[in-house]
Amino acid sequence: MSFDKKEITKKSENISEWYNDVVLKAQLADYGPVKGTMIIRPYGYSIWENVQNILDRMFKSYGVKNAYFPLFIPMGFLNREKSHVEGFSPELAVVTIGGGEKLQEPVVVRPTSETIMYDTYSKWIQSWRDLPLLINQWNNVVRWEKRTYLFLRTTEFLWQEGHTAHATEKEAIEMQTKALEWYQTTYENYYAMPVITGRKSEKEKFAGAKTTFTVEALMPDGKALQACTSHNLGQNFSKAFNISFQNKEGNNDFVWQTSWGFSTRSLGGLFLTHGDDQGLILPPKIAPTKIVIIPILGKEDEKILDYAKKIKEILESSSSEFPGGIEIWDESWKTFGFKNNEAELKGIPVRIVVGLKELENRSLTVKTRISIEDKNSFEIILDKAGVEVDHLLSKVQNQLFKNAKKFLDENTHTIDSYDEFKKIMATKRGFIKALWCEDANCEAKIKEETKATTRCLSFDTKEENGKCIYCGKDAKYRWYFAQAY
Amino acid sequence: MSFDKKEITKKSENISEWYNDVVLKAQLADYGPVKGTMIIRPYGYSIWENVQNILDRMFKSYGVKNAYFPLFIPMGFLNREKSHVEGFSPELAVVTIGGGEKLQEPVVVRPTSETIMYDTYSKWIQSWRDLPLLINQWNNVVRWEKRTYLFLRTTEFLWQEGHTAHATEKEAIEMQTKALEWYQTTYENYYAMPVITGRKSEKEKFAGAKTTFTVEALMPDGKALQACTSHNLGQNFSKAFNISFQNKEGNNDFVWQTSWGFSTRSLGGLFLTHGDDQGLILPPKIAPTKIVIIPILGKEDEKILDYAKKIKEILESSSSEFPGGIEIWDESWKTFGFKNNEAELKGIPVRIVVGLKELENRSLTVKTRISIEDKNSFEIILDKAGVEVDHLLSKVQNQLFKNAKKFLDENTHTIDSYDEFKKIMATKRGFIKALWCEDANCEAKIKEETKATTRCLSFDTKEENGKCIYCGKDAKYRWYFAQAY
Repeated sequence: MSFDKKEITKKSENISEWYNDVVLKAQLADYGPVKGTMIIRPYGYSIWENVQNILDRMFKSYGVKNAYFPLFIPMGFLNREKSHVEGFSPELAVVTIGGGEKLQEPVVVRPTSETIMYDTYSKWIQSWRDLPLLINQWNNVVRWEKRTYLFLRTTEFLWQEGHTAHATEKEAIEMQTKALEWYQTTYENYYAMPVITGRKSEKEKFAGAKTTFTVEALMPDGKALQACTSHNLGQNFSKAFNISFQNKEGNNDFVWQTSWGFSTRSLGGLFLTHGDDQGLILPPKIAPTKIVIIPILGKEDEKILDYAKKIKEILESSSSEFPGGIEIWDESWKTFGFKNNEAELKGIPVRIVVGLKELENRSLTVKTRISIEDKNSFEIILDKAGVEVDHLLSKVQNQLFKNAKKFLDENTHTIDSYDEFKKIMATKRGFIKALWCEDANCEAKIKEETKATTRCLSFDTKEENGKCIYCGKDAKYRWYFAQAY
Repeated sequence: MSFDKKEITKKSENISEWYNDVVLKAQLADYGPVKGTMIIRPYGYSIWENVQNILDRMFKSYGVKNAYFPLFIPMGFLNREKSHVEGFSPELAVVTIGGGEKLQEPVVVRPTSETIMYDTYSKWIQSWRDLPLLINQWNNVVRWEKRTYLFLRTTEFLWQEGHTAHATEKEAIEMQTKALEWYQTTYENYYAMPVITGRKSEKEKFAGAKTTFTVEALMPDGKALQACTSHNLGQNFSKAFNISFQNKEGNNDFVWQTSWGFSTRSLGGLFLTHGDDQGLILPPKIAPTKIVIIPILGKEDEKILDYAKKIKEILESSSSEFPGGIEIWDESWKTFGFKNNEAELKGIPVRIVVGLKELENRSLTVKTRISIEDKNSFEIILDKAGVEVDHLLSKVQNQLFKNAKKFLDENTHTIDSYDEFKKIMATKRGFIKALWCEDANCEAKIKEETKATTRCLSFDTKEENGKCIYCGKDAKYRWYFAQAY
């Protein structure tokens, strides 16, 4: 396994080839043998474990509890909510043989768990005392795909799906909003990705939802990534699955529900956003390895290795807001250059080089994976290493966000002419903020003519008195449009 | 949802009805809609999360890394290792329809991941530098079952499966042994379950393994539970999947492999072992809620609730080796008796009762879920609560182990007469240690006549000069026999 950077396509030349090269070479993932499936390798999986920790803590501190519902759903369950089954039917994997026998009723491999969970909720919920019911599960789901785009589009993916039931719609909307806040925090504070949050159009909302809230991110090729969603299901499923309860006044009512999910797809967005021609770039708050120490071996190896270990001890004993590990790469069969390339390819935020010079100076040379104030090499005194290296990690984290924010701002276009809309979508793309009358016909025509779909009505949108960019009829709100992954 | 203990069958009367009652009423699990499947409810799942933490820490500290391989395996992969496919064929769930179309090659829902992982290992491993490869995954697997026995036998279950590749058989056996040590520690130190560890017979070993090591536990009805296993796969799979490497001497060789798994089945063993007529009993080291504080409400509610909160604070601020939570159950719509029953049913190790008496005495009344030195109620001074309650939790943990060990010892019979063997298996059951010639015919006959199978050759077995309990021919070792779950 080599880490020759020449084997990586340049990001600016062909971003999707660059992406595949980086994901494979940095050992984040590999293709599975069944079409559309993916193997998440240890390095990629350890990033997902970090994400799980971040979100799981948020969920639990709010009172959400983890559970596990079965992988297999009776075919009949999906049919109970009309728009839900219409949305998912084309993507289903169906088990027809079990234990050597043809099954009387085929079972579906879950594409999402609304139906199987809510069938059970109807047994668990009888009274307001059983509410709110706040359940999450970390699991695998399957939506049949013919082409794999590693992390971004795979037949099977990993995610969490939260499913809650409430006594009032107000509470359900609070939950829907809270979930989106968790997701936004995860993207902005951990993934270092600025995002747009808002509401989906009727056409783009989840199959079975009353409203869908979404987090949308802009990728370097100007396409949007639907980064995760949170749904107010209203009483659509509770009526279909008969989840009723006696309220405090003694009357029967159907519960109000939400569902919300965050998946391994998000990692694709993370890799696309920050990477460069040298490979991956991981934000320090989410990097499994935040620091790698590379000794320059040659003369006085033992002294240099001892010094590297001392540095590791000092860094580990200093308090840090970054959970990742610190590694020393001391294998003698890899050259110094090879290790540097590997550290860059794997996107390790900070690299520490120690040789004779550093040993003599009681210092360390710190290289940051991206430039901080136009520099990416810093000499630091050993005595101050703990604080200073952490400080550099903070700067890398912030700089990554700033760079992505600059890109987002520069590629968000407020447009009032449909000609310009078409021109932008045919060239540099990006987000377009345009007035839309909210008629599904205009939305469909725009998609047909420009490949751009409505991404969301951002939560911070102000009402305007204008005309729809497509049909010229009255339009109150400026929606986000983009071509999407 | 009521917690009326009268609804629970007595454990001594019918242990399998008792078990189902407790699992359902204590809200550990529920039946899934597809035959053979199970829903793990939040209370049950939080125990599994504790187990995951315990094992995951052990794995990682040894250098094992987590990854994720796909759910779907091409049918052809299973056929490559002959005994493997023979072992698993009768239990497979097969997907024949994907995305609305009949699949050209049906895919199997993984019953275990040897084949799909090792196909990939052959691409990842080229040189001794790539070894050892130590990978684990936490996932769901499917083995078709028609009858569900909650946790103990379900079509889908959760587990971890470790899969390693090594340069020498010696290293592989060290890994196989290490995994079994982790499992034994988990059972004995956390589950408070004494276990027998040893090697499986040729008939009972894993389909495709060279040797299988096992952890065996004895359930209160005298039946054995195969609690988890660890396999030395030799070069069986590496030859079938062509996983070869260049060793340090420059020669090509096939890798030596192990696999090892620990599943949600273990929780069934935990519940069966310790529970009593009042419900579940959870060892403090694994209980999600280690302490529940139940205030006696009536007069001076506010003072009592404040006092309960103060107790909680003191207990939480004191250092403790028990990770579980501390809850105050202050809902006014549940009676004190109801809460007591609920705490017992859910097996919470320690219950603290606070009323006016305790408030006046600046004390707390601590009830342990099982008797400690013939007592289960202790009055403790508030000032010493932190240390003393933790001390009681330790005592509960140790007492549970002692009780189970006493049962194991009393129900392990060293037998030299086949008549007695038959009599024991027809009545009280338990483990029988008997000399066996290691001929598969004798093993099969014994099973046919007594329903007892060989469980293992315990690692601490001494060589003897004796005769097989069945055929009378020479036999060197005394094997464990039992009827098994």
